[in-house]
Amino acid sequence: MEINQHRLRSDLESNAEFGAVPTDQGHGRTVLTGTEADRRAREFLCERLRDADLTTTIDEVGNIVGRWTPDSADPDAPAVATGSHLDSVPEGGIFDGPLGVYAGLESVRAMQDAGIEPARPVEVVCFTEEEGQRFGGGLIGSAVAAGDMSVDEALAIEDADGIPLGDALVDIGYCGDGRVDASAWDAWIELHIEQAERLENENATAGVVTSIVGLVRCHVEFTGETDHAGATLMEERADALAAASEFVLDVEAAATERQTVSEAAVATVGKLDVSPNAPNVIPGQVTLTVDVRDVAYDSIEHIIDEADGSLREIETERPVGTAMERPWDRSPVEMSKRCRDALHAAGQDAGLETLDLHSGAGHDTMHIAGVTDAALLFAPSRGGISHNPLEWTDWEDCADATRVLAGALAELTQS
Amino acid sequence: MEINQHRLRSDLESNAEFGAVPTDQGHGRTVLTGTEADRRAREFLCERLRDADLTTTIDEVGNIVGRWTPDSADPDAPAVATGSHLDSVPEGGIFDGPLGVYAGLESVRAMQDAGIEPARPVEVVCFTEEEGQRFGGGLIGSAVAAGDMSVDEALAIEDADGIPLGDALVDIGYCGDGRVDASAWDAWIELHIEQAERLENENATAGVVTSIVGLVRCHVEFTGETDHAGATLMEERADALAAASEFVLDVEAAATERQTVSEAAVATVGKLDVSPNAPNVIPGQVTLTVDVRDVAYDSIEHIIDEADGSLREIETERPVGTAMERPWDRSPVEMSKRCRDALHAAGQDAGLETLDLHSGAGHDTMHIAGVTDAALLFAPSRGGISHNPLEWTDWEDCADATRVLAGALAELTQS
Repeated sequence: MEINQHRLRSDLESNAEFGAVPTDQGHGRTVLTGTEADRRAREFLCERLRDADLTTTIDEVGNIVGRWTPDSADPDAPAVATGSHLDSVPEGGIFDGPLGVYAGLESVRAMQDAGIEPARPVEVVCFTEEEGQRFGGGLIGSAVAAGDMSVDEALAIEDADGIPLGDALVDIGYCGDGRVDASAWDAWIELHIEQAERLENENATAGVVTSIVGLVRCHVEFTGETDHAGATLMEERADALAAASEFVLDVEAAATERQTVSEAAVATVGKLDVSPNAPNVIPGQVTLTVDVRDVAYDSIEHIIDEADGSLREIETERPVGTAMERPWDRSPVEMSKRCRDALHAAGQDAGLETLDLHSGAGHDTMHIAGVTDAALLFAPSRGGISHNPLEWTDWEDCADATRVLAGALAELTQS
Repeated sequence: MEINQHRLRSDLESNAEFGAVPTDQGHGRTVLTGTEADRRAREFLCERLRDADLTTTIDEVGNIVGRWTPDSADPDAPAVATGSHLDSVPEGGIFDGPLGVYAGLESVRAMQDAGIEPARPVEVVCFTEEEGQRFGGGLIGSAVAAGDMSVDEALAIEDADGIPLGDALVDIGYCGDGRVDASAWDAWIELHIEQAERLENENATAGVVTSIVGLVRCHVEFTGETDHAGATLMEERADALAAASEFVLDVEAAATERQTVSEAAVATVGKLDVSPNAPNVIPGQVTLTVDVRDVAYDSIEHIIDEADGSLREIETERPVGTAMERPWDRSPVEMSKRCRDALHAAGQDAGLETLDLHSGAGHDTMHIAGVTDAALLFAPSRGGISHNPLEWTDWEDCADATRVLAGALAELTQS
């Protein structure tokens, strides 16, 4: 099946204009849910879906579905669906999300061009608020589609200014009717950039995800004593930042050690806030987050145990108090063997190398996998960089990954 | 000489009402320069100075001087001066600054009550913007009085909203005329709380400062790579926060080790900012401050060298870049032997134990010592806590330290 690289690139470049941010290097965009950039990105997608003769609907949480029901298809048969999201992090890249949406559309166009006759409808989907940068924790559209969150719950989620998602969607004209129901799909495949370097390092065209990592997120607080930086001798100090620094290194060491057992194990202190945060004051309090992920849940537990042990040791050695909460806990999710096999077969048919790997990032597919056969396909990311204007996937690689996606979709729609 | 503890306490408690902040424990106040709290604190001080028959003047940068010229004094003789400041850090304590101002006034009243006949005028001084919480780096009023900063330069310093100090002083009616000239003083003594625990631990009444520490402040930047916390394997990371954590511990270790050679050596990372500071993003950049102090400048240099060595090692071991700037560099300042002797003698006369020690904090006296004989006297701070509503000095201790101050002032004004 022939993928039109030029057409795919043109769609992605047009989409990159919405919310484009000036950068010295790379291509950045900021598309937060319910903003003007979001409205324009959605409008352009709907146009492109209609140009390819897909019937477009918007559900109540703003999920967009373009449905292709060729004459060959039983219109009542469960559809095979594909897609991703169009929203971005602030100053994110142009591929994270849009590649999956437009590769889905290009796959349909390629099937149309090749005269393929699916036995089922094919749906191209754009989920609302995957990144969670404006509303809630992200993955909202797919959570609703999978029944993991109610429509009302989703619409009520407020941004930092107290504006509910529902109002934001009405504002841009993308609060539609009904609910996309992922459980009605026969199968689902999402194409996404890898956001890591494994494909690039292995020189592989596409990665077939075996499972999406589980994630535990902890909030940790260190309480020392705010004191004068000049007048307090070293041995009199209860420095919350020095204590937290030990912890940051212990968490890093625990994950690095665990990686020798379980390659996917990672742990990150990404957010750390010092109080009062003044040059001449010994920090009295530090709060930080720990994000631990692995494909094996016991491995996550192991790292959390190590982090907990670090806190106990720090409390013994330093005059500081610590507290750890665990507000987020998500189990690893396995991908469907049927869909994965279809992806590998499509790769082989096209003479492209596909590689089994895990996903360290959560994706909309995580929710969808709970209600139907689902798979996640990765395209290479240069240098593994994402959530950054330097995020990049060569156009050739975009097209090759789309070729694998289209082949698998064609295969899944045959019966 | 008799100190009226009740009168001193009453003044300090009245002053504590201005900018008082509600706290569960202790007594907090927020008196930023040029605010309504500052205006009321200044107004009350001027009233109390006048109540004691001191002639009150305000200079162009808002420094307040109450001058007592008894009949016994040659009005043209250089005055002996004492005082401190009334501004505070946000949610600071009630003694840091005000104790020195009102102990100065109480000393004059005690001399008056005791019928002491000074040969010189005595001046009680309140300097503007010691803390530097709203304008510039602090010590502004004393810098102008010592000629280390021009009046125009001081008045032009802007707060975070772009309001110049001059306008803020006009707003509260405390932009006066002329300039307090510290070089015209015969001697200067400031009483201040210790902000450390040495006096408490030694059970001493007052500390006579031998020297004020020098201070070097550095800005350090760590540049790694912002990346996805889930998708980036441990060995692929360039985590700026993990690198900075090593540095924080190295700085702490360097100062702790140096303290075995030079007891006053301290180093603090008080301010640290992470970017982008999100739970699911590996930190790409960290900026932090290092504050190094000691009574010996070579000792400060030694710690800075160690910090620099730490950065070089971190750059070797981790894929991060580092940069260090050194915007602040202040040499240690020795106190006048004549004034220190007067303080020790006054302590002995009153049967109170005085202790030699250094000051880890910068004080207005630092500037004044450049142009006249100056000394700094410390009163005990409970638990060494300051810049905090829990800052506390027992009223008995306030009175005893004032007794030492008054005795020394009386002695210095005799000739």
